[in-house]
Amino acid sequence: MSPKAAARPGGRSARVQQAVHAAVRELQAEHGRAELTVPQIASRAGVTPSTVYRRWGDISELLSDVAVERLRPETPPADLGSLREDLEHWAVDFLEEMSSPPGRSYIRDALAGDPDGGNAGQCSAYAVEQVDTILDRATARGEHVPDTDTLMDHVVAPMMYRILFRPGLLDAQYARDLVTTVFYRLMPLP
Amino acid sequence: MSPKAAARPGGRSARVQQAVHAAVRELQAEHGRAELTVPQIASRAGVTPSTVYRRWGDISELLSDVAVERLRPETPPADLGSLREDLEHWAVDFLEEMSSPPGRSYIRDALAGDPDGGNAGQCSAYAVEQVDTILDRATARGEHVPDTDTLMDHVVAPMMYRILFRPGLLDAQYARDLVTTVFYRLMPLP
Repeated sequence: MSPKAAARPGGRSARVQQAVHAAVRELQAEHGRAELTVPQIASRAGVTPSTVYRRWGDISELLSDVAVERLRPETPPADLGSLREDLEHWAVDFLEEMSSPPGRSYIRDALAGDPDGGNAGQCSAYAVEQVDTILDRATARGEHVPDTDTLMDHVVAPMMYRILFRPGLLDAQYARDLVTTVFYRLMPLP
Repeated sequence: MSPKAAARPGGRSARVQQAVHAAVRELQAEHGRAELTVPQIASRAGVTPSTVYRRWGDISELLSDVAVERLRPETPPADLGSLREDLEHWAVDFLEEMSSPPGRSYIRDALAGDPDGGNAGQCSAYAVEQVDTILDRATARGEHVPDTDTLMDHVVAPMMYRILFRPGLLDAQYARDLVTTVFYRLMPLP
């Protein structure tokens, strides 16, 4: 997220951000991403192009901010009653969402217009938050749990790496196999 | 790599590609990436802007092709006499190179102008090739070895994920720890 965009929550600043983000989403739905220009977005949002440039620098930073918003999880992970089931269910969902054509294009947009790495960090923070929710529940149930970084490194990272760099090697079984590897090979000793 | 760029190796086509890539590298060294425009690149390369547009579509595809060339490993992995040492040495080098500011910016460029995923796939193919060289040598020595995908999923992927999404959690010890995890936890049963 550009520091400028996050600077003033509430008030006019928040309204401008909301209007501009909404304009991008509408135009992407209508035209696809290749065709978007700042004047077109500004006109749809009812602001001047210079407002957009002042706030986002260039269009790739704006698209990155919008993409990160769309990657925000809408609900907490499902609670199926056991760590293994919760992780498998979440990993299969995550892979399906992120490897879909819109998912891939949001990830690409988020990384592309992100000079300071803040938006990429936010994507990762969303995954950490979901994983932590699952681990906290399991701990509360009295289950033995791996740590967050084990799951980020050995479940989330392999899925994201294949999505970005090795497409075509992805299915639900791959997500489940990664969780199985954590359970049989990477659990801390009790 | 855009199919157009790969279509005609040799002859005029290869000379144009070479001149344009060299122009990009020179201008990046002189000005940084933010300032590059197609007319500027074309003028330095001694070709017309329309030659560049015809071949690469837009500047982000050209920057992606140049970035992938720069990510090509220049030498095979060092042979230190054992699988463990070879992998640790290679992983530490890979992490250092990819997490450096130029490394990060090549990875970002490679992903950004890559509508068909060919350049991202090439980045991954380079890593697979290096890993396979190490594994083939170890097999020839009679060592017990993990498979390529285990190393891609549990050594390369975690490093690349942190480079892209969780910067600030990276050092040589992290690379060595991932290799240790493979040795103690993820080796196939003999």
